[in-house]
Amino acid sequence: MSLVPRSIDEWLVREILKFIGPAPIQLIFQNGEPIAPPGVSPVATLMIPDRRTLWGLVLDPEVAFGEAYTDGRIHVDGDLVALLEAAYGAAAEAPACLYSRLADKWTNFRQSNTLSASRHNIHRHYDLGNDFYKLWLDPQLVYTCAYFPTPSATLEDAQIAKMDYVCRKLRLQPGETVVETGCGWGALSLHMARHYGVSVKAYNISHQQIVFARERARQEGLSKQVEFIEEDYRHATGKFDVFVSVGMLEHIGVANYQGLGRIIHRLIGDSGRGFLHFIGRNYPTQLSRWIRKHIFPGACPPSLDQAAEIFEPSNFSVLDVENLRLHYAKTLEHWLDRFEHSRDHVSAMYDPSFVRAWRLYLAGSVAAFRGGTLQLFQILFCGSRCEPVFWTRAPLYTEEPSAAEATKWITATS
Amino acid sequence: MSLVPRSIDEWLVREILKFIGPAPIQLIFQNGEPIAPPGVSPVATLMIPDRRTLWGLVLDPEVAFGEAYTDGRIHVDGDLVALLEAAYGAAAEAPACLYSRLADKWTNFRQSNTLSASRHNIHRHYDLGNDFYKLWLDPQLVYTCAYFPTPSATLEDAQIAKMDYVCRKLRLQPGETVVETGCGWGALSLHMARHYGVSVKAYNISHQQIVFARERARQEGLSKQVEFIEEDYRHATGKFDVFVSVGMLEHIGVANYQGLGRIIHRLIGDSGRGFLHFIGRNYPTQLSRWIRKHIFPGACPPSLDQAAEIFEPSNFSVLDVENLRLHYAKTLEHWLDRFEHSRDHVSAMYDPSFVRAWRLYLAGSVAAFRGGTLQLFQILFCGSRCEPVFWTRAPLYTEEPSAAEATKWITATS
Repeated sequence: MSLVPRSIDEWLVREILKFIGPAPIQLIFQNGEPIAPPGVSPVATLMIPDRRTLWGLVLDPEVAFGEAYTDGRIHVDGDLVALLEAAYGAAAEAPACLYSRLADKWTNFRQSNTLSASRHNIHRHYDLGNDFYKLWLDPQLVYTCAYFPTPSATLEDAQIAKMDYVCRKLRLQPGETVVETGCGWGALSLHMARHYGVSVKAYNISHQQIVFARERARQEGLSKQVEFIEEDYRHATGKFDVFVSVGMLEHIGVANYQGLGRIIHRLIGDSGRGFLHFIGRNYPTQLSRWIRKHIFPGACPPSLDQAAEIFEPSNFSVLDVENLRLHYAKTLEHWLDRFEHSRDHVSAMYDPSFVRAWRLYLAGSVAAFRGGTLQLFQILFCGSRCEPVFWTRAPLYTEEPSAAEATKWITATS
Repeated sequence: MSLVPRSIDEWLVREILKFIGPAPIQLIFQNGEPIAPPGVSPVATLMIPDRRTLWGLVLDPEVAFGEAYTDGRIHVDGDLVALLEAAYGAAAEAPACLYSRLADKWTNFRQSNTLSASRHNIHRHYDLGNDFYKLWLDPQLVYTCAYFPTPSATLEDAQIAKMDYVCRKLRLQPGETVVETGCGWGALSLHMARHYGVSVKAYNISHQQIVFARERARQEGLSKQVEFIEEDYRHATGKFDVFVSVGMLEHIGVANYQGLGRIIHRLIGDSGRGFLHFIGRNYPTQLSRWIRKHIFPGACPPSLDQAAEIFEPSNFSVLDVENLRLHYAKTLEHWLDRFEHSRDHVSAMYDPSFVRAWRLYLAGSVAAFRGGTLQLFQILFCGSRCEPVFWTRAPLYTEEPSAAEATKWITATS
């Protein structure tokens, strides 16, 4: 392979290869010869059909790759997840160019998290239709990282185990009151009420999710114990023993964390306990602009340093932090697999570019959690006048969870 | 009780009562009538013999109380720990006065953590004489928070359990290399080598501790496996699988955390694992000036936010954080109890003001960990190219620890 490019196209291809470094990816431009970094066995081949796409990949790979893939302008032959994992690893080490930094700021400016903007952002993702999510989530529609007691556990069991793990970390006691913000389709609220005898007030601004959750509470006779409220977390009211939020922090914007801390303090005071489960980062950085533009507008997974703004001003004590990123990689593998198996159904509901965009999003997320560009944190905390929840963590792992009982419910209703 | 003070003295006493709020503490000034907040049953009585001491308590309680107690100018009748816990709770809610803030800055300015200042600071506390520490620590001289599998475990067993817990959280494997900074009297390094087959390079700037640790390694035939080096952590060299530091972070100063992060990265790179165990805070704040002046010069327990400066710039992943503050309260109860039982021995070695100062420091620490003004954090982390250490934490609690074997060693040598 000569090091002198024979054409502008070859020069562009080599620029892309330079960017992805030693990543084991092979490029083919316009049915030409495959080009790959020397001495590696490629995990996937990226086929680029035209010069416009090629220029896009050189100038703004963060957005151009996703848009070209979605439009069907580039094709990937081989392992998409492995290709993305290699590319993310390379991109994380490359310094951000000026254009990328300016574009980041512009995206942040446009995608704020005011009350109305949040409603719009959440609507765009979570109100795509419950029928769509039913195709590839578990039967309870839990759309956050599961907890796999062993890697071979089923997704259904792992989601129940996760909900139970949250309840047990919080040591929920019968008769306690819980407020949940960002409750999705309601599975956790219902699990807490059903298995731990607590009463729950659950907030969410996704209309379709709230409708589903209320109907499920009614069917299960839990409407008195669990109240689902279509309202922003900023409008939560009341006094509770426990605050819980699973998968909401990523959506509210780092600028709102101090405000969230004050809201939690208002809800549970100095003697309550709290739990946050969220996608995070090793250090502060933005999601790719493609994800923010097409999948999760307004989203930003925080670093622990950023999340600390929630706890410190209210003198909350952090009791326990667990990083479950490999569990999210595993969860996403299940989702991607189910998504692919439901491709015909999804294709009947949406156009081909939607199918490709969601494949890319799910595969990219598997890659990000596997490779460690994304983390998954669970944080247990309590107010300054609350005794730490545990003497040791041992009972969490040595006492029988209620998951077995929950499984019976699933079997009975599915 | 009239609300109009009859004298300047009574006014001063009432100012102190105002400061400590509803804390159940009774004051007696110069053999006068006891004064206490209305409607509470006092846990202790503070006897103030003269006006100079009274003025000191009003103007600068943070230092004056400790100095007057140490000099024998004030006496406490009743439960000293309960008195301190109540006072700390009240002080945490009182806004810092201008004098206190300026004095804080002055103390920080004088107590830096340059290489030579650190050596001086550490020498003042840890080189008080091994014979002194042998009087009230466990036989292995572990001078950090123990881990009590049950609250009734003995201190000896709890210190072994703690060392084992650290090794198991790190999943140490035979043949691995470990660097420990701030190794105290060497117990953890020797435990890791003896029970986990690793080789250790351990750094410390306390001369007396290093001499003790080397002698112990020699006696146990572990000198080849464990190298004790009398040197600052900033001069640590080599490449290791694992970094560990227990009880050092509090001493190095928050301004040096980014530097520590770079040093850890130099030592374990992107594929190593690390462990930090340290006294921490819910939010950034200083230790009392009395403690910094008389017990721990240059010390500052960080908040998690401040500790994040170690991890984020090097792209380390935080895997696990555990808050063990009640275990430190329990550890300190044992130390205080042993200290009181050794009072005659300590009195033969040091003057009465030393005995009172150390009683106050130990009792104050019990109070701070019980009441939650101090926290104890254990943080497990790893480099960006290291697989997370665990799939789940369950094996930490379900597999047999090597502590039983370690106990045999203690029984054989003590």
